[in-house]
Amino acid sequence: MKPDLISNDSQLDSSGKLIHLLGLKGLPIKQIENILDVASGLLDSQGNLKKSKTLDDMSVANLFFEPSTRTRNTFEIAAKRSSANTINVDLANSATKKNETLTDTMQTLKAMQIDMFVIRHKKNGLPHYVAKNIEGVTIINAGDGINAHPTQALLDMLTIRQHKGSFENLSVAIVGDIRHSRVARSGINALKTLGTKDIRLIAPAYLHYKETTSPELERFDNLNKGIKGVDVIMSLRLQKERMVAADIPNEKNYFDNYGITDKTLALAKPDAIVMHPGPVNRGIEIDSSVADGPQSVILKQVTNGIAIRMATMQILAQSI
Amino acid sequence: MKPDLISNDSQLDSSGKLIHLLGLKGLPIKQIENILDVASGLLDSQGNLKKSKTLDDMSVANLFFEPSTRTRNTFEIAAKRSSANTINVDLANSATKKNETLTDTMQTLKAMQIDMFVIRHKKNGLPHYVAKNIEGVTIINAGDGINAHPTQALLDMLTIRQHKGSFENLSVAIVGDIRHSRVARSGINALKTLGTKDIRLIAPAYLHYKETTSPELERFDNLNKGIKGVDVIMSLRLQKERMVAADIPNEKNYFDNYGITDKTLALAKPDAIVMHPGPVNRGIEIDSSVADGPQSVILKQVTNGIAIRMATMQILAQSI
Amino acid sequence: MKPDLISNDSQLDSSGKLIHLLGLKGLPIKQIENILDVASGLLDSQGNLKKSKTLDDMSVANLFFEPSTRTRNTFEIAAKRSSANTINVDLANSATKKNETLTDTMQTLKAMQIDMFVIRHKKNGLPHYVAKNIEGVTIINAGDGINAHPTQALLDMLTIRQHKGSFENLSVAIVGDIRHSRVARSGINALKTLGTKDIRLIAPAYLHYKETTSPELERFDNLNKGIKGVDVIMSLRLQKERMVAADIPNEKNYFDNYGITDKTLALAKPDAIVMHPGPVNRGIEIDSSVADGPQSVILKQVTNGIAIRMATMQILAQSI
Repeated sequence: MKPDLISNDSQLDSSGKLIHLLGLKGLPIKQIENILDVASGLLDSQGNLKKSKTLDDMSVANLFFEPSTRTRNTFEIAAKRSSANTINVDLANSATKKNETLTDTMQTLKAMQIDMFVIRHKKNGLPHYVAKNIEGVTIINAGDGINAHPTQALLDMLTIRQHKGSFENLSVAIVGDIRHSRVARSGINALKTLGTKDIRLIAPAYLHYKETTSPELERFDNLNKGIKGVDVIMSLRLQKERMVAADIPNEKNYFDNYGITDKTLALAKPDAIVMHPGPVNRGIEIDSSVADGPQSVILKQVTNGIAIRMATMQILAQSI
Repeated sequence: MKPDLISNDSQLDSSGKLIHLLGLKGLPIKQIENILDVASGLLDSQGNLKKSKTLDDMSVANLFFEPSTRTRNTFEIAAKRSSANTINVDLANSATKKNETLTDTMQTLKAMQIDMFVIRHKKNGLPHYVAKNIEGVTIINAGDGINAHPTQALLDMLTIRQHKGSFENLSVAIVGDIRHSRVARSGINALKTLGTKDIRLIAPAYLHYKETTSPELERFDNLNKGIKGVDVIMSLRLQKERMVAADIPNEKNYFDNYGITDKTLALAKPDAIVMHPGPVNRGIEIDSSVADGPQSVILKQVTNGIAIRMATMQILAQSI
Repeated sequence: MKPDLISNDSQLDSSGKLIHLLGLKGLPIKQIENILDVASGLLDSQGNLKKSKTLDDMSVANLFFEPSTRTRNTFEIAAKRSSANTINVDLANSATKKNETLTDTMQTLKAMQIDMFVIRHKKNGLPHYVAKNIEGVTIINAGDGINAHPTQALLDMLTIRQHKGSFENLSVAIVGDIRHSRVARSGINALKTLGTKDIRLIAPAYLHYKETTSPELERFDNLNKGIKGVDVIMSLRLQKERMVAADIPNEKNYFDNYGITDKTLALAKPDAIVMHPGPVNRGIEIDSSVADGPQSVILKQVTNGIAIRMATMQILAQSI
């Protein structure tokens, strides 16, 4: 299903309470700000996280149908830091491989008394389908196809808020493989809801955003033009695993045209921050001197990722 | 070794206390009822489970020599819900693959201060061998070859007791691949001990029960005849992984003759319950309308499985 | 890098406090004795371990770049017994395989709020490199190439101390594949620091210790000569995975010349103890009658391994 056609309606109950986290499109600003606020409250003044006992009575399952050590680790760490029981369901050997339907797997795990499911799947809308069709489970979307990756976008928003205070007057450049990026789609939705009016999408034609436009969005295929005067640069990972072979760019060529270097960075505002969802392909998406430089907030994003995931779980736990 | 020749004697100490759970053959009715009672006590009135601190000081290791995500998960969840430390020993990469004997592996894990071992193995009697030969470890049999799967049978008994109250006057049909089913063997033993006098074994000749008969058991190869008027239908999974190729039935043909459908179900008592150890092969062993219908207790079995495994661990912990 | 060239200096801070555990070469005797003392305190009079809450606020990650179920398990068990959160980073599927540098992986895990890293790597000096180059992480070396395996040597020292009281007047034989053994190198360093003056290295020429000698060390290629009158026999595992094919000895031949049997054991002191880091290749490095005999302390070593790892983590936690 195309991302445009996927609705996040079932993530709110009839009173507007968050009962799943599926995507940021259509999520009210109050809900977004609440997650950012709870996450901020988990960080001490040095930006470090304490353990909490909030989820002491909860069981959280990681269901990663796409391989991803890094994101899975962050959810596992977030759950454990909140004192939840966690279980990584081994999908390679699991029953889903041998005839059992996804619905049966989910119903069975629910009957095993799992309270919360973190789902990553290559199919757009898969977590939405589960949330809609299986009563009494709580779903967190950890990335579905090219559609959404809401916790990643929320940690990006937390990072921007920490550095820029508010969103209304910002210029934000999103650079790279936007076409295949659920991170970009969720980021665009979050920025629009939070009031950002100048969102620049910078990519070569074959990696560009395919959805219809909106007043906040401007498309560029020239990095130097697009990046001029921005407050925030969000560099994206080349999602080779989602490209057909012909679309995979020559790496040197890509870096020459879309890699973030000291030179291109100089075109942004002097206090611009540089973000990347990681893992970084150094010398392809971003130069090492930028990734490790003073304007990079890449590692801060990682810590914020734990905070956002803890906050999301804690907020959702209130409705269980 | 043939299941008939395997003794469960070493699961009781000289005073009759349960020190391992190896199998249900010969286990006194008091012991079986005690496990069912403890498990019932862990469930609240909605059939949900609370966490407990009972095993706070215990370490439990999962030793699954046969791949099984589902059963392994239930033991891991049961141990964690009881606050035990758990460890999944990675047998694919472990020393058992490179020269170390099973006895050395077990002795080493015991020396690592593991208190309880959950063992699944394709060899009949393997957990019994370990229990007999390695002093000071506590063993739970999570399935050995075609011999026994005691926690599965106990969760089945708990489910039957919840719906039928007692066992003496029940008619129970066990349908399907009985020949390769440790679930069936343990179920038969439990039902006999609990007083059921009408146990009907329904299977095609090549998948039938091979052991000698007893007064409680009647064999059928016709599903419609066998199922007539029963209180409980236990449908079994086709254990293709234990069949020689020539024995694997044509699925359509199998379903036509032994699949549980609304039509066959209508031959049982109107309040008959339908059970399956899962994962269900829909349209082969059982029709979706039955699996998801009002008489199905399949998901209740899953929850009861966690309760039975928690109860077993808690009872065994008293002897450590 | 050759083991001789690797410095452990960065494991102590400027005030001499232990901030990593990288190796035993150059580690002051006070530090070694402190670890042994803390470990002893964790064992009760039966040699069993209790759980502790000491690391309740810590997160420990296992980074095993070489496969090793056994050692990984011991660190995981030690961390969990101290109530730490633990995470096994799945390096087979992780970002290190796809472009990310080790430094990026470590920085990212640190940003995920991991406090302590247990690292095993086939490269000599890899944990030292990480400790030196990444600020604010705590490293425990769980084995680097042929260089060092400090927790193994410390558990060996604890076992010797339990049986022999002190080290000064001992004769210790290290037998087997010394050339490829980080256990032997760390053991030699520990024994020298603890005052042992008679350390005998027994191996065929092609598996012998290559480093320059020191007054405490004597080399033998004849087992019977070397073992005469010793208090302690440390048998080593043949590290076939680190040998070139031509060096892999014929097993029968190796056993005939260097295997520990009742007959060779009779040449040692009557109360000599027999140690092995495990897993034992029975009938190759050591005869079953010796491995299971009254002078074997092999299983005690395993339990001491948990105690040493708990002690190491607890001491290092004081500097976090």
